[in-house]
Amino acid sequence: MKRKPRLDLTSVLGVPVAVGCVLLGQVLEGGTLNSILQLTAAVIVFGGTLGATMVSFSLAEIKRALRSLSAVFYDLEPPIEDTIQTLSRFAVKARKDGIMSLEDDVDRVSDSFLRRGLGLAVDGTSPTTLRAMLDAEAGSRDESDELPARVFEAAGGYAPTVGILGAVLGLIHVMENLSDPAKLGAGIAVAFVATVYGVGSANLVFLPIATKLRARAARTARRREVIVEGILAIQEGLNPRLIDAKLHGLLGVDPPARPARTGAKAA
Amino acid sequence: MKRKPRLDLTSVLGVPVAVGCVLLGQVLEGGTLNSILQLTAAVIVFGGTLGATMVSFSLAEIKRALRSLSAVFYDLEPPIEDTIQTLSRFAVKARKDGIMSLEDDVDRVSDSFLRRGLGLAVDGTSPTTLRAMLDAEAGSRDESDELPARVFEAAGGYAPTVGILGAVLGLIHVMENLSDPAKLGAGIAVAFVATVYGVGSANLVFLPIATKLRARAARTARRREVIVEGILAIQEGLNPRLIDAKLHGLLGVDPPARPARTGAKAA
Amino acid sequence: MKRKPRLDLTSVLGVPVAVGCVLLGQVLEGGTLNSILQLTAAVIVFGGTLGATMVSFSLAEIKRALRSLSAVFYDLEPPIEDTIQTLSRFAVKARKDGIMSLEDDVDRVSDSFLRRGLGLAVDGTSPTTLRAMLDAEAGSRDESDELPARVFEAAGGYAPTVGILGAVLGLIHVMENLSDPAKLGAGIAVAFVATVYGVGSANLVFLPIATKLRARAARTARRREVIVEGILAIQEGLNPRLIDAKLHGLLGVDPPARPARTGAKAA
Amino acid sequence: MKRKPRLDLTSVLGVPVAVGCVLLGQVLEGGTLNSILQLTAAVIVFGGTLGATMVSFSLAEIKRALRSLSAVFYDLEPPIEDTIQTLSRFAVKARKDGIMSLEDDVDRVSDSFLRRGLGLAVDGTSPTTLRAMLDAEAGSRDESDELPARVFEAAGGYAPTVGILGAVLGLIHVMENLSDPAKLGAGIAVAFVATVYGVGSANLVFLPIATKLRARAARTARRREVIVEGILAIQEGLNPRLIDAKLHGLLGVDPPARPARTGAKAA
Amino acid sequence: MKRKPRLDLTSVLGVPVAVGCVLLGQVLEGGTLNSILQLTAAVIVFGGTLGATMVSFSLAEIKRALRSLSAVFYDLEPPIEDTIQTLSRFAVKARKDGIMSLEDDVDRVSDSFLRRGLGLAVDGTSPTTLRAMLDAEAGSRDESDELPARVFEAAGGYAPTVGILGAVLGLIHVMENLSDPAKLGAGIAVAFVATVYGVGSANLVFLPIATKLRARAARTARRREVIVEGILAIQEGLNPRLIDAKLHGLLGVDPPARPARTGAKAA
Repeated sequence: MKRKPRLDLTSVLGVPVAVGCVLLGQVLEGGTLNSILQLTAAVIVFGGTLGATMVSFSLAEIKRALRSLSAVFYDLEPPIEDTIQTLSRFAVKARKDGIMSLEDDVDRVSDSFLRRGLGLAVDGTSPTTLRAMLDAEAGSRDESDELPARVFEAAGGYAPTVGILGAVLGLIHVMENLSDPAKLGAGIAVAFVATVYGVGSANLVFLPIATKLRARAARTARRREVIVEGILAIQEGLNPRLIDAKLHGLLGVDPPARPARTGAKAA
Repeated sequence: MKRKPRLDLTSVLGVPVAVGCVLLGQVLEGGTLNSILQLTAAVIVFGGTLGATMVSFSLAEIKRALRSLSAVFYDLEPPIEDTIQTLSRFAVKARKDGIMSLEDDVDRVSDSFLRRGLGLAVDGTSPTTLRAMLDAEAGSRDESDELPARVFEAAGGYAPTVGILGAVLGLIHVMENLSDPAKLGAGIAVAFVATVYGVGSANLVFLPIATKLRARAARTARRREVIVEGILAIQEGLNPRLIDAKLHGLLGVDPPARPARTGAKAA
Repeated sequence: MKRKPRLDLTSVLGVPVAVGCVLLGQVLEGGTLNSILQLTAAVIVFGGTLGATMVSFSLAEIKRALRSLSAVFYDLEPPIEDTIQTLSRFAVKARKDGIMSLEDDVDRVSDSFLRRGLGLAVDGTSPTTLRAMLDAEAGSRDESDELPARVFEAAGGYAPTVGILGAVLGLIHVMENLSDPAKLGAGIAVAFVATVYGVGSANLVFLPIATKLRARAARTARRREVIVEGILAIQEGLNPRLIDAKLHGLLGVDPPARPARTGAKAA
Repeated sequence: MKRKPRLDLTSVLGVPVAVGCVLLGQVLEGGTLNSILQLTAAVIVFGGTLGATMVSFSLAEIKRALRSLSAVFYDLEPPIEDTIQTLSRFAVKARKDGIMSLEDDVDRVSDSFLRRGLGLAVDGTSPTTLRAMLDAEAGSRDESDELPARVFEAAGGYAPTVGILGAVLGLIHVMENLSDPAKLGAGIAVAFVATVYGVGSANLVFLPIATKLRARAARTARRREVIVEGILAIQEGLNPRLIDAKLHGLLGVDPPARPARTGAKAA
Repeated sequence: MKRKPRLDLTSVLGVPVAVGCVLLGQVLEGGTLNSILQLTAAVIVFGGTLGATMVSFSLAEIKRALRSLSAVFYDLEPPIEDTIQTLSRFAVKARKDGIMSLEDDVDRVSDSFLRRGLGLAVDGTSPTTLRAMLDAEAGSRDESDELPARVFEAAGGYAPTVGILGAVLGLIHVMENLSDPAKLGAGIAVAFVATVYGVGSANLVFLPIATKLRARAARTARRREVIVEGILAIQEGLNPRLIDAKLHGLLGVDPPARPARTGAKAA
């Protein structure tokens, strides 16, 4: 089950498109990039957002969110179709030689959830206990998978308000020195950069990343659902072609070449 | 089951009405369209929104959202009443000649969900398994149907904030050149156009489209519910007129000419 | 079951109170109504909101929302107590003469949901099927009843943002003509009227109407729940006084004169 | 079960603290209370909010919300511990002399939900019917109890936007008279008072009151849950000490002196 | 089961990082801390927020929220792994000597929920009653555990709006004294400090703390779930190694050294 991670094209292109178009607009308008590169604003907005996010989560959670960034730009998981084919192969073997015959296959399964579930089935766990255990474990893993998305959502929620905080601080500074009107415009311009950083980082980076991570987690959750139904159907001894139809149905796609009817008939 | 796509009148008229009234107002006020046509603002707002939406979704999802635009302006699906009539016809035939007699009809069904479900029923899948499979498949398809709406909702969420980003960038530019007060007004005017693009595209285009797509998905979900109940009732061998009453009840409408009572009596 | 629609006092008085107080405030402040009567702003705000709402819904849905306005100002439905009394009368008759004796009453029932449900019960539909059918139909009708509220909620969501759009367009116009400072104030004043229209129509009209329509739909849903439980209790042959207690309990009110205990005792 | 309503300290002190601190700040800043006392703003904000709330709810609901204000400042309900002790006393008596022996106690119960439920149990209603009836009635009463909170939440939602409406109207007035710059500042100051009224009344009064009312309703809902479980356990004839443990468990608190284990052992 | 509370690093560092970066930015910008230290703004924002939060909750709830602050900075609970090991030890003993043999262990358990549940199991409560009681108690405790987070969320909701209130009050003061333009800037600067306090305290302190408290409550809820499943599995007499696998599955982690398969086989 060797596989090469595929680049996620929209993620890889999306951030440059978003940030690039905004900067291009800035240049077209006759502005310079210099006027929106500002250490002060960066310290306030990114430091404040980082601190707020740190308080919100634990160190392990923040590290995990950063590691999950690779899942935004690379599609690391095999297609669900692979999982269905693996389950179908096991179903054929189990129907021919009994579920115990899968004992040796268990160790070679790379997906840890499938390996655990199949191991429990091979060990003769009762169907009711097995479903309860797998459902509970799937639910727990699904929830845990959503964590990185929640970290970026939190950062995307704090950044714009911290940006406004930075802008207000800048305006206070400007207002205190109103006696020198020559500096008024420049001061306001500087103050506004914090808003640009906050609103921009949230809407062009943090929130889109969170949305993609949520979609990734939802896909993994669907894969787990397929695995649970597949293992239980194998244990039940259902016809492999009906299993195939059932698992494709779970995905809401037609199985290739309508094997469901013919297969079920043979059952 | 040939049918001509009907134009969705409110969608077709709604966008011109919305955009037209706003532009008309602009002209009535003595403004020119030129003053709100601006390449810079368009690059920032639409480029930034496109990039953020790209990161949020996969290429396949974005393509699907764009294709689903035709469903906003054309009503591509047959009325649910057609589906009920098809199911009623099958119910009559199944009650007379047995459910196996539907075998040849299965292949002629154009709706893939109905075809799959009916095929499973004809193949003798047990009612419990059949309901579990159809419910799971319906749930999965329903969720997938909501995806295009979610893409437009995301775009409608990013656009106004990117519009504000564009306006703030414009204001920074204006403020830096405050020494030339003659250009102040024009600069601010230009800056505000980004807000117009962001708020306008979100509220006059993206979000209304998302709302209509969600309604379309909800209608299709209701159709699937009707199909699931219909297939199970046919398999159960219920009286066709009771089936008809049941399916109309699912829609919350009275069946034509109260066949429920008389029909059920004959059962 | 003839009844006169009662005026809904708070709806009838609420809109004039809300709009009147705002206008009164405007006059007290020394302003004139003229300064907030403006064709341009009305075209932008109401035209834009109408267009966005049209795209969001179908023609039938918008028509239905407009028709439902009468339900905001008139209380068209009989009190739920009437429905309970009807069900109690049927319960007494069914317990004495059998449920078949209700056959003639069915046609005289004006509420279509009660008529359909009672018809199914009289026709001998099994309790399990009957509950499933009535629950499904009630759920579907309940959802459909919420539609008008959702149309006004959508309008109340679009209006303020379109109002801001109108204000920004107005400000752009003002800024472009900054060279003539004498017109600055008047221009800004005109621009702000769009905000008044958007925020005002949403918060003083659209959203309050939507809230009342949701409450109406919730009351109708509760009536349907009462009908479902009542019909099933009649079919089950429960003691009429226990039925009465049960249905009042569903509403969370004490039945008049504690008939529950005595009645149940006689059962 | 006589009891004296206890003052709710945080409610009684909270509103003066909130409003007082804001006014104190205003005075510390060198402002006068006069500058924020303004009939016009009050008419617009409170009249508009009242009207919008009137349309949203019925007269009975608004009256009930106003009456429920006493529940914000006084804690009118007995502690849940009292209810558990009453149920425990009934459990002991029912276990000794049979549930019929509670017949005379029923009428002396002051809580109408407990009285009704116990009456049904004494009358010999079957456990399944009893649970269904009590759950339905509890659900209906719980929902109805949340109504006053929803009225204040609605008012707290309308007030800030009507406040902005008032401010915009004021600014329009100011802008129209821009020719007299001496009055500019005062005019803007007057316009802003509407915002103060709207934001202040919502965040210092309406929304906090709604939050407390929701908490009150949640506590009453928990009491009803205790009553339902208690009545059903009495009917089932469970050991009184196990009942006591069960009901305390429902509250998530340890029962005094661990009677659960010893009691259950005796069962 | 002695344990030392571990410092929660991200909480301890997060607040200084957030507040420090914002202040550092302020200094880098050339501003002084003095210009954002202001008694008036503090009285308005923190007094107003405190008052609104007081009305929203009861004294006991606010005290509890303050006490729970220690849980933000210290990780007071033992790792869930400890709980699983305790349950595993009990499972081994119960399988060897019967569940009654755990009687003496019950009193030595420090976690009150585990102690209560185990006590009920040892006392011979039926599995159905036991699960119902433990589920109800866990649900009630879980809900109660979320309360401190809700208090800080409420404060984080009130603070920014009260901050805006303070700013508007300040601006009113400034506008009334517009005749002295020298003081205009300083006045506006002072007014804006209230916004800094409101937005800053909410986003850098209150909301991050609420998020961490919610995560803590969720972890405790998961521990309770583990305890409920563990006690019921012990009562059921499941193989200790299968119990271990089940409880680790609930957490979504692999148990050390795959004992599940081998263990279940021995069962």
